[in-house]
Parts: sequence; structure tokens; C-alpha cells
Amino acid sequence: MRFELLNKDGSARRGRIHTAHGIVDTPAFMPVGTAATVKGMFPEDVAATGAQILLGNTYHLMLRPSAETIERLGGLHKFMNWDKPILTDSGGYQVMSLSQLRKMSEEGVVFQSHIDGKRHHLTPEYSTDIQRMLDADITMAFDECTPYPAEKKVAAKSMRMSMRWAKRSREAFVARSGYGQFGIVQGGVFADLREESTKALREIDFDGYAIGGLAVGEGQELMFSTMDSSVHLLPENKPRYLMGVGKPDDIVGAVMRGVDMFDCVLPSRSGRNGQAFTRRGTVNMRNARHKEDSRPLDEKCSCPLCRNYSRAYLHHLIRCKEILACMLLTRHNIQYFQDLMAGIRASLENGSFQAFMVDFYAGQNAGDIELI
Amino acid sequence: MRFELLNKDGSARRGRIHTAHGIVDTPAFMPVGTAATVKGMFPEDVAATGAQILLGNTYHLMLRPSAETIERLGGLHKFMNWDKPILTDSGGYQVMSLSQLRKMSEEGVVFQSHIDGKRHHLTPEYSTDIQRMLDADITMAFDECTPYPAEKKVAAKSMRMSMRWAKRSREAFVARSGYGQFGIVQGGVFADLREESTKALREIDFDGYAIGGLAVGEGQELMFSTMDSSVHLLPENKPRYLMGVGKPDDIVGAVMRGVDMFDCVLPSRSGRNGQAFTRRGTVNMRNARHKEDSRPLDEKCSCPLCRNYSRAYLHHLIRCKEILACMLLTRHNIQYFQDLMAGIRASLENGSFQAFMVDFYAGQNAGDIELI
Repeated sequence: MRFELLNKDGSARRGRIHTAHGIVDTPAFMPVGTAATVKGMFPEDVAATGAQILLGNTYHLMLRPSAETIERLGGLHKFMNWDKPILTDSGGYQVMSLSQLRKMSEEGVVFQSHIDGKRHHLTPEYSTDIQRMLDADITMAFDECTPYPAEKKVAAKSMRMSMRWAKRSREAFVARSGYGQFGIVQGGVFADLREESTKALREIDFDGYAIGGLAVGEGQELMFSTMDSSVHLLPENKPRYLMGVGKPDDIVGAVMRGVDMFDCVLPSRSGRNGQAFTRRGTVNMRNARHKEDSRPLDEKCSCPLCRNYSRAYLHHLIRCKEILACMLLTRHNIQYFQDLMAGIRASLENGSFQAFMVDFYAGQNAGDIELI
Repeated sequence: MRFELLNKDGSARRGRIHTAHGIVDTPAFMPVGTAATVKGMFPEDVAATGAQILLGNTYHLMLRPSAETIERLGGLHKFMNWDKPILTDSGGYQVMSLSQLRKMSEEGVVFQSHIDGKRHHLTPEYSTDIQRMLDADITMAFDECTPYPAEKKVAAKSMRMSMRWAKRSREAFVARSGYGQFGIVQGGVFADLREESTKALREIDFDGYAIGGLAVGEGQELMFSTMDSSVHLLPENKPRYLMGVGKPDDIVGAVMRGVDMFDCVLPSRSGRNGQAFTRRGTVNMRNARHKEDSRPLDEKCSCPLCRNYSRAYLHHLIRCKEILACMLLTRHNIQYFQDLMAGIRASLENGSFQAFMVDFYAGQNAGDIELI
């Protein structure tokens, strides 16, 4: 795996990751394909939005249908009909948030499946091997996502165990051309712990570095200030990935601080809940004011929803709980996120990122178009 | 509206209906788009299966978003982004099966919405006007679908009221070029009542004739014998539509008896329940035997599911209750029904319908492919 840094504008970076399944232009947003599908979308439509990489979830896939089954069927790309790059998480985060009766030790985690109560274990070695079986282009080191809030002592202890797990993950990783592994910085909101974590990971030497343990309830301001104190410690020549982020303005602010990659369930989950992302902020399409509105959701958007349907129709589908509501709105929301990233990348190429940000915030603050 | 009878093979007919929104090749299967959407499908994908006409439901659309709203928004075609022909039912059937506290009189039906309990009325005149507001290419006369079983006296009384309603529906219909209206034969399973009903409708003179009150629990044998005694009484030069039918072998048997048009929720509803239609009969894709099966559902099918995914993947999506399971399987099932109709039409063109039927039944009786 190879990272090219093409251009900089302040701390913001325009880059390119070369993987076994193709190129990822950065800054990049990765739609989340939890159970080997981006919920409510055909993979060819995900690609049509401009997405070049998906995120898959180790925790969900190890439980159903199992990593071994996916390996026997030729890997995750073939299984889900997605031939572009895939990054998989390590499973650590979801073991903590979804499973029952989990028990953590230095060795790893023993837990019960949230689906059928069956007992499983996950260690740095097994998580790394699962991701190999899935054929992930980018493998994540197994870590504990330190909860928020956490006392410094707790955050330090958790981070240091994650660093020992990072080393074991790295040792378990089988190097292959076009494949890479990222370490994950932890340390809560404490600058010195983040620094310690970053150093530990740099010593291990990963192909990229993720910023973990943020966007877990601390708020945007604290998230940004934590990044301000630590992102610059990461090596220039490796990609940087802010995990689980986020809202459009989180992404723009993080790009400004030098982050290259993002993932979030927000566009797809919102697509199932009637919430639309637009250049003029979010719009609740359940609202009765759309009932007779013959205008498109966003006249500047190129997605099928905005090209072919009225707000009134989408509102109708949502009220009727029709599957097509989710299909069209998820498609639009992912398109919005990919258009946002394409706009960011274009501005970084010609040194106009500041102007891009001014436009972006003006649009977000403008509010939705008014009723006729 | 104009019907061309192109060819006959025994009683089976190959024809073509010319409507305001294009041609319908018959025998034709109409996917059901109840609430202005074929559940789980983009309309362009419905068209890609070869479907040339959809069915819309007056009852559902009058309640949400209302016929008046759809008219203001430019009609049902524009509302749901489907520019090919649409047939709408009259609402009579669903008032009886879905609404609460309905009260029928000679005038029509007063009922409470199953959604919000609001009071509505439906008469032959208003049903016909709703279908005009929706801009249906083919309008159905307002009738009562006689329940099954019904004593002859009850069936006669119900049928005669439907015939008076048919006359009122016809008088309320506004003739426009490319638009037509169908009357509906009732009379339960009683040959003499069916004959009386057919004569009454022929006297009124419709643009096509539907066979109603069948496929309501009487079983295939009684459905076919009822048709055997009455279908030949319908005029040769007008299309014939068997409402709510049906399973693939119901369709083949009805085509043999001279029917031109069909509609059924079966392919889309089954698509949401994990049941697949194939050349070798139905297959329950929830069954654990598919868990590791890398083969396509049907290697002869051209749909995206069969081209791009394994049985194992579809099985996985169904177990995980993923929306994509419904999207892919509904697409396949509608493709199966459209391929069936295309095969029937081709065989009628070259006089090989008998051979087609032999192949069809052999395939259906073969059973699914065996485990490797």
C-alpha cells in the first residue's frame, strides 16, 4: 500500500492511496457497509456516487455469516459485489457497544453475540486474521475505544493496553502488495496521552494512522482541540483516518486539521429516518410542509432523487414507510457526502480551500429553501 | 385506446394495447405499485425487467397523498417517475378488505380509513373521477368483489349491483384519446351469473373486460372451470384481464383460456419474504442449505441478483433482514414474471405455445438444483 501526498493547503492535504483494489483519492469519505451491504443501496449505485472505498465491520461479519464463510466464498469484495478498496474495522469498538457479557483481559475479549448469545473471543491476532480472511485492503489494529468521559488514569491504562495490542496486531499482519494496516491513536482528550500513543504507534510503524476515541460524545470543540494538539505528530507521508466522523462540518473542520479519511453511518442511517443532507443544511422530509412541494430536494444535486422526483413524492414515501424512501434518500445522502469530498479535493488542488470553507458554512447556515 | 389481436394459438391470444403512454404487449403481467411505488424497486428497474404497464391502487392513493394532490402534482406518472401505461383499480376491492366500519348502499360505500380512521366515501362516479385525476391509462369500473364462498342468491344480488355500478362508472368516464375503461365480470363461480354479467357489460360497451371475483380462495380448478364456461363470451376484439392472478401456473393456464392481462403482488411480496420464483419452481432462500452455496439463484436469469451474487450472499442478507435482500429478490421475481410473459408471447407468435407449456411444467416440476 502506498500513499502519495499530492498537495497541501495549510494543514489540509490532497492525497492518493494505492491499494490492491484501486486508488482512493483523499480526503475520502467511506460509506459504512456493516453486514456486507450499504443499507438500502446497490453497490453499483454506491460507486456511482463517487465512493472509492467502503468500510466493513469485523464484529458483524464474524458473527454472520462468519469470516471463514466469506473467505471460502472468495472474500468480501466478491461476496458483496464491490471490486474497489475495502477497509475493515477491528471489531473492538462494536464488541464494547453491542455485545453482552463481555470480559476483557490482556489477552483480548470474550463476549456473547448480540444476535444469538453464542460465545466468541476476539484477540489482536484473531481480529487481524479475520480481516485477512475478509481480504480487507486496509486492516485496522485491534484496540479498545476508551469510553468518554474517562479519568486520565483510566484513559492512560486503556491506551497503553491498546498500544500493546497494536504491536501484537502488527505482528499478526501478513504483508501483501497493495494491502496495509493502520494503527489507532487513543488517549482520550489528554494531549500528553495522545502524544504517547502516537509515538508508540510510530515506533511500531504502520501504513497509516487512525485517530480513535473521538466523536464519542465529547462535542465538536473538544474533538477539534484534541486533534489540534496531536494530529501534527503523525507522519506526513502516511494517511490519517478520523474514525466514525461525522457531520459535514466535522469533516470540513478535520480536513482543515490534516485528516485524510472518514467513515460514518450518518448519511445511510439518516436516509432511513427521513433526514436529508443538503448544501443548505439538513432537512427533515417527514415535515408536512413538503406535502405538496413539487420542487426537487436540491436542484443542484445530480442524484436520481433530485433529478426525477418531487419533495412531495419523497414525503409521501416516508409517510407510507415505503422502502423506496430509504433507497432514494440514502442514495442522495451518500451523494451529498461524496460531492462534499469532491469539492474539498478540487479546492485543495487549486489552493482555494479557504474559499471553499466560506461557501460551505454560508450554505449550511442559509437554511432550507422557503415555501412558495 | 386500441387493441390489436395479432395472433391466436388455440384460445390463447397474442395482442397489443395502444395507450396514451405507449404500447402494452399481451399477454402482459402488471407489477403492483400500490402506494405509487413497486415496493423495493426503482421504476427504471421495473422497466428494465420488460414491464410495460403498472397497476396503481385507488384506495391507497385516495387516502395518501389523495388523488387531488397527485393531480395538482401532474398525475401519477410524473409523481412516481413512470412514463409508461398505468392501470388503476377502482378501490372497491380494498375498501372491503382493508377499511373499517364500511357501509354499502346502492349509492356506494362509506368507510373509515385503515390509516387514520377518517371517514371517506366511494361511488362509481367518484372512483372514476379519482382515476381520471390520477391520469390512469386504463380505468376500472367500480364494483363489489363478491366474497367466496357466496350462495348463488348473494352472488346474483352482488353481481347485479356491480352491473348497475358499471353503467354509472361508464357514464362518469371522460373519453380521451389513448385512455380506456374496463368493465368487470362478476357472478361468483356460477356459469349462468357470469353469462348474465358478461352480457350486461357488453351492452354497456367497455374498452376491455376484466374477470373479477376469482383467485379469492376457490382454488385453481374451480377458477379455471369458471373461466372455461365464460371467457369465450367476451368479445374477441377487446383485451381481457384476470384480476389478482397469480402464480406462474395460474397465468399459463389462464393464457391458454384466452386471457391477456394479469396483476399480482406475489413477486414483490415474495421478494420481501425470501421466496424466489425460478424456472424450477419456488425456492425458499431462508433455508440454511444456501448458507455456503456459491452458485447463482438461477444461472439462466439475466437479473442483477443472478448475474452478480451467490445464493449464500442472498441468504445472508435475508437472515440479517437487510433491505438489499428485498431489493435484489423483488427485482429477480419481477424479472421472472416478465421473462415468463415474454416466453409466452414469443411462443404465441410462432405457434409453439403447446411446446412452451410442456417445457414450463417440466421445469416447475423439476425442483430446485441439488446441493453440490
